[in-house]
Amino acid sequence: MRRLALLALLPLIAAAPPAENKKLTPTDVVAQMGDEFWITIPAEDLLVMTLEGGSRVVIQLAPEFAPVHVANIRKMATSGYWQGATVYRVQDNYVAQWGLGEAERALPEGVVKLPPHEYWRPLKGVAFQAVGASDPYSKQAGFSNGWPVATYKDGTASLTHCYGAVGVARDLAPDTGSSSELYTIIGHAPRQLDRNIAIVGRVIEGIENLSSLPRGTDKMGFYAKGQAARPIQSVHLASSMPVETRPSFQHLDDSTAGFAQYAKVRMNRDDDFYRVAAGGADICNIPVPIRPTPKK
Amino acid sequence: MRRLALLALLPLIAAAPPAENKKLTPTDVVAQMGDEFWITIPAEDLLVMTLEGGSRVVIQLAPEFAPVHVANIRKMATSGYWQGATVYRVQDNYVAQWGLGEAERALPEGVVKLPPHEYWRPLKGVAFQAVGASDPYSKQAGFSNGWPVATYKDGTASLTHCYGAVGVARDLAPDTGSSSELYTIIGHAPRQLDRNIAIVGRVIEGIENLSSLPRGTDKMGFYAKGQAARPIQSVHLASSMPVETRPSFQHLDDSTAGFAQYAKVRMNRDDDFYRVAAGGADICNIPVPIRPTPKK
Repeated sequence: MRRLALLALLPLIAAAPPAENKKLTPTDVVAQMGDEFWITIPAEDLLVMTLEGGSRVVIQLAPEFAPVHVANIRKMATSGYWQGATVYRVQDNYVAQWGLGEAERALPEGVVKLPPHEYWRPLKGVAFQAVGASDPYSKQAGFSNGWPVATYKDGTASLTHCYGAVGVARDLAPDTGSSSELYTIIGHAPRQLDRNIAIVGRVIEGIENLSSLPRGTDKMGFYAKGQAARPIQSVHLASSMPVETRPSFQHLDDSTAGFAQYAKVRMNRDDDFYRVAAGGADICNIPVPIRPTPKK
Repeated sequence: MRRLALLALLPLIAAAPPAENKKLTPTDVVAQMGDEFWITIPAEDLLVMTLEGGSRVVIQLAPEFAPVHVANIRKMATSGYWQGATVYRVQDNYVAQWGLGEAERALPEGVVKLPPHEYWRPLKGVAFQAVGASDPYSKQAGFSNGWPVATYKDGTASLTHCYGAVGVARDLAPDTGSSSELYTIIGHAPRQLDRNIAIVGRVIEGIENLSSLPRGTDKMGFYAKGQAARPIQSVHLASSMPVETRPSFQHLDDSTAGFAQYAKVRMNRDDDFYRVAAGGADICNIPVPIRPTPKK
């Protein structure tokens, strides 16, 4: 049954361009940003996973932060390693996890079985825009080439476990996981995992195809006997797909004044719905705007 | 297909009691807390919602923070107001929303159609335990009688929009919503809503029955034509149910040393899985432990 009154619980979707005196929403700010402020994500950084039934999940890879793990993922995708893989764990307010265990199939040639601890990297060498609000988990949180990152007193930076972050499942240290099994965050950001697991990317399309799966009833959300793990039909790098059918996405350039305004408005909502502006936000509550690349 | 190796991505479920020298997990700390440290939630503060098919969602109400809205909810539950109500909106990483519009059924006698703005209350008069980490949204975050709260420079305190928080859908101010339509948070905490909407409680059991529902494909996650809204079979106050069948829950007493240790361990994970302790956590990443009341 549809509601008669559409309740205005945070309008995430811009309808018409804002009137002159209307206070801007974050969506309004993003809608004003011209094509020149959007950066196209390289096709070799897009992993396209199709679940049984045809629903699609697109993951942007983060080679700047986890180069060896990302190289592994590219090799596994192009070699067909994940044939027969499943989504086999869905834990509420935590993770959906998928892949194929190394006990079930030998890793393809060239895949590094025990990659280095790519849990952080030197801040030096990557761009960084501070978000300008306190972060209980780090020295300072902000953005780096479109990624949410945290920086630390020791001069390092890590990707953050925000909603949709994709990480590498692992056993106890020194194991880092090869990347044969991956997870994504489907709940409140478990930031205690930052600097403890390799984050290799983020879901940029179709996370609802993972987050709405039935929760596993076994320990830690693993699917119990009798619960059917969700088969993965295919995993491809976009760069291996025909140009006409491969997806393409862009993220808003986080070094622009428009992005800074977007973040500021996220922290200081003052449109008609709000009575009190928060005056701050955590890094995971300022998602980097991403859109399909417009057709020319 | 079950995994052969159980990947240890944060063991939320304690198996055996910890060995002498093992570093404690939050679950270990909670498991050590004797019955005397748990507070039973009054039956009149539990709202029991059963979805079609029999799956149950239990909500703890917060009369200390939103007394008029909570009184409305109790009256609507006991008068059968929600017969025919549905879950009609599920927006990924945001909210699941349900209820029955006031245009569809007149509010029961005694329900306040336009309650006051119970978005915050004076901090004076409620217990408060600071969490001891910075909060980008408030002066200080902490706990009050088992609730996650934020405090502000003006001497007020508000409940926080953490995962599972239940709030009252509303239109633009000065409307506060009668409570005929409610939502719960099913993603990263949208704390910008704090002090802008009445939070009336939190889901303490069965949130997965809402968070795993199909996402609505209409604007803002409303179910589109052709998507079947999920019928709600019944909504009862536990205090109106037979004593033998009503559910009962307890929360850990947040004024105890054991609770403080639990919060500290959440902020400083150092068990075998972790390489680096975060040294802090946001209020929504320290969920108040809740358990079914043990049978005598």
